[in-house]
Amino acid sequence: MWGIIGTWAMVEEGILLGGRHLSENGSVMDAIEMAVKDVEKNEAYTSVGLGGLPNEAGQVELDAAFMDGKTLSVGAVAGIKDFLHPVSIARSLLDGVFNNFLIGPGAEKYAIENGFERYPMLTQKAKERWETHKLEVEGGLAPYIGHDTVCVVGIDSHKHMATCTSTSGLFYKKEGRVGDSPIPGSGYYVDESIGGAAATGLGEDIMKGCLSYEIVMKMKEMSPQAACEEAVKSFNDKLIERRGKAGDISVVAMNSEGEFGAATNIECFPFVVMTQTRGLMKFEVNQKGEIKSC
Amino acid sequence: MWGIIGTWAMVEEGILLGGRHLSENGSVMDAIEMAVKDVEKNEAYTSVGLGGLPNEAGQVELDAAFMDGKTLSVGAVAGIKDFLHPVSIARSLLDGVFNNFLIGPGAEKYAIENGFERYPMLTQKAKERWETHKLEVEGGLAPYIGHDTVCVVGIDSHKHMATCTSTSGLFYKKEGRVGDSPIPGSGYYVDESIGGAAATGLGEDIMKGCLSYEIVMKMKEMSPQAACEEAVKSFNDKLIERRGKAGDISVVAMNSEGEFGAATNIECFPFVVMTQTRGLMKFEVNQKGEIKSC
Repeated sequence: MWGIIGTWAMVEEGILLGGRHLSENGSVMDAIEMAVKDVEKNEAYTSVGLGGLPNEAGQVELDAAFMDGKTLSVGAVAGIKDFLHPVSIARSLLDGVFNNFLIGPGAEKYAIENGFERYPMLTQKAKERWETHKLEVEGGLAPYIGHDTVCVVGIDSHKHMATCTSTSGLFYKKEGRVGDSPIPGSGYYVDESIGGAAATGLGEDIMKGCLSYEIVMKMKEMSPQAACEEAVKSFNDKLIERRGKAGDISVVAMNSEGEFGAATNIECFPFVVMTQTRGLMKFEVNQKGEIKSC
Repeated sequence: MWGIIGTWAMVEEGILLGGRHLSENGSVMDAIEMAVKDVEKNEAYTSVGLGGLPNEAGQVELDAAFMDGKTLSVGAVAGIKDFLHPVSIARSLLDGVFNNFLIGPGAEKYAIENGFERYPMLTQKAKERWETHKLEVEGGLAPYIGHDTVCVVGIDSHKHMATCTSTSGLFYKKEGRVGDSPIPGSGYYVDESIGGAAATGLGEDIMKGCLSYEIVMKMKEMSPQAACEEAVKSFNDKLIERRGKAGDISVVAMNSEGEFGAATNIECFPFVVMTQTRGLMKFEVNQKGEIKSC
């Protein structure tokens, strides 16, 4: 029973690509990378990869991660500029016992040495978007908006599970700001004996609760849907109790049976799934846990 | 019932300073920062702060983090060069809703803008140590050794809990390599309604299991000592099952009653504790969970 699930409507084409690969007995590692690369290279999606949201200084700084649910290996990069496929750099870091998580100029140096080519990631449209927003911020608008990370979790017909993420992070973030997306346990986690989960939203809040790890642990005892709902609800409540407010939080999960779930604390969180038995499905989930097709 | 616990023998003076501060009704935030700063500024300790272990390129790249157990706020920096007290920069990042985790040049820019002064962190001795090791590596020695992070967890007389970490990371690491120390849930976690935990060892492995978060969750139902032992044992076993081996892992924890625990998968892990009722204590724990005074 293969399956693949991803965050936001922008992942639809990618899920279709990844799902087709899984349907042809392909590996989950390739399928999820394929799905995320499709989003990274698409300039129309303004929060991931090419055309992504620039930071305060007008630079596109990218974060990505990969986790193998069999070995628990993590590969991650944060704060890298001008590479088309951060997720592939993250995947290449899975191997080896040391140096699996690289940041900034060191990560870029590694990427170049390992055959990844520079690619200009600040598009004209992103630059214009940044210039407009800069004026708005100078005019008094709260600076930080936009943080839609692409996250994919999958299982192949050999029961191998993996997950990966990619994002340009918070629009107008400070230079070098890292959210939850490259951080194991917060932005993503997978143990193929249980399942995998990944998160999108305000990374600064998501990392306060190791939300993806928490969901995977909950899946030991409940369905992915129940695990997602319970984790988001209790964490959202705790943030409000402790801090008076909670940032946007949305999650997807899949277990070792290929069952899936999603939850959110915002009005509407779209996600896309493809499974062996049900084909491609597009859903939205709301704060109450109500899921509808779309 | 105040208390403070820290990793490795090098933290003794720091724990004494922090403990005295707690005994005078001081805040846990100041006490743990004080403890870690004492280690950071001491050139004799070769894995933290001044005189820390250089990376492959001969640069001292520092990681640090701070977490407030009341608000769950995280502040963290990774891959910064030439600041005497990374832990204080991390603490200054606790405030605010956004941009709590900064890396590399962006983090350095933030630090300078916020009044932290540059301080040359590559000492002559560290440079000599690096040059010798470089020759050894060129002669065939495995490159990566040394990863003793200072981690401190504490509770003050107002039941406020917090934790912080600081490290120069793995000796001879690749430029920009990040371990578990700045990563919430892996290198440290604290929720003052339960307790706090922190980890030292091979960060690449510790982050595969969100070990500090796992220990805190276990402390809901068991003593800090049992939580540390169970978490380290089961995670070590899982790493061996999945990967054939496990890196060095050592942990300390304290719960909301000021009770403490520690565990390791190495032969001998020294840690230091000071509590209201028992004063300063120096211990070693081994793989079997046997703790002895020293």
